Amino acid sequence: MFQKGLLVVLSAPSGTGKSTVARLLVQRNSRLRLSVSATTREPRKGEVEGKDYFYKTVDEFKSMIENDEFVEWVEYCGNYYGTPKKYIEDSIENGFDVLLEIEVEGAAKIKEKYPDCVLIFMLPPSFDELKKRIEGRGTEKPEVIENRLNQARREIKCIDMYDYFVINDSIDNAINSVNIILQAEKSKVKRNKDLLEHIGFDRR
Amino acid sequence: MFQKGLLVVLSAPSGTGKSTVARLLVQRNSRLRLSVSATTREPRKGEVEGKDYFYKTVDEFKSMIENDEFVEWVEYCGNYYGTPKKYIEDSIENGFDVLLEIEVEGAAKIKEKYPDCVLIFMLPPSFDELKKRIEGRGTEKPEVIENRLNQARREIKCIDMYDYFVINDSIDNAINSVNIILQAEKSKVKRNKDLLEHIGFDRR
Repeated sequence: MFQKGLLVVLSAPSGTGKSTVARLLVQRNSRLRLSVSATTREPRKGEVEGKDYFYKTVDEFKSMIENDEFVEWVEYCGNYYGTPKKYIEDSIENGFDVLLEIEVEGAAKIKEKYPDCVLIFMLPPSFDELKKRIEGRGTEKPEVIENRLNQARREIKCIDMYDYFVINDSIDNAINSVNIILQAEKSKVKRNKDLLEHIGFDRR
Repeated sequence: MFQKGLLVVLSAPSGTGKSTVARLLVQRNSRLRLSVSATTREPRKGEVEGKDYFYKTVDEFKSMIENDEFVEWVEYCGNYYGTPKKYIEDSIENGFDVLLEIEVEGAAKIKEKYPDCVLIFMLPPSFDELKKRIEGRGTEKPEVIENRLNQARREIKCIDMYDYFVINDSIDNAINSVNIILQAEKSKVKRNKDLLEHIGFDRR
């Protein structure tokens, strides 16, 4: 039985551990691919071109916008971030699930363009815990920390837009919860148009 | 975090093994209760009053209809079948999931009254297999078998009304698939209104 892939959107406030969970999900599931975003922000230490992001200049990014190469793009904390279209659509048509790690505004745009996508919001075990994680990095200035906390507050308030939530109390629990959601989504009747043919039933 | 229970509707054409799966699901999950229907049909060998059905006379059943004690009732193959309201609603309010084993018309009525319910349709691994199972019982007259096959055909055509499908290729697989669906449904944002309070986040 052929199934088109799922487009899965994973959002979470900064500090929730979204990138770790996303990377391990993809590592452990050969049918799931991580969508790689383009950005104009500077690479952080250890980040790899084509794996973490496609790093673009502002001019390059703007030309991609003009050529309609993005599903969505956004300016966020002074940088551009965008989701290239082609990779996602090709993967889904070929039966691969695609995981999109994206913030709230981006998620809303994805939902608009791909109404069948699955929106998952990852939460920290507690808001206090999230505060500690954001402060605890110790690598950012106080105003950056304050910005990030405010951003987290705004994002969490958008949770009602999401289909599912997952609590990241442990990485394995979070991964397991996402996998359960994906399995359930794949057993939705509406996602399996050739189901009755598959069991040899003639609808006529 | 308190969650109201789920109302889960399981339908399947006769011969798919629905009752076995339903009974084991409930046996293995202490938070899941099987709704017991009332019926006017004769008990089959081995069936137990209050466990398989509440067996009623036609007069008793009609008086329950008049007293509005049913979520739904239906006349099916010459007998009445109905779902008593109180047990379902009490269970759900107290956080228990309720499994309703019910045919297609009944499922439609449940969905109308309880739009948040979860509709699952169980399919045989193949339609030929289903035919064999129905014929293979050998306990029924040819016209009863023919009726049941036609009924199965009509029911399978209603699958688009359901949220999820499960294929009963083995009882353990079917049970596992239903449990995955229930877990995913429980992690829907809309079913967890006090989620943000739970993580200590103040929405204001």
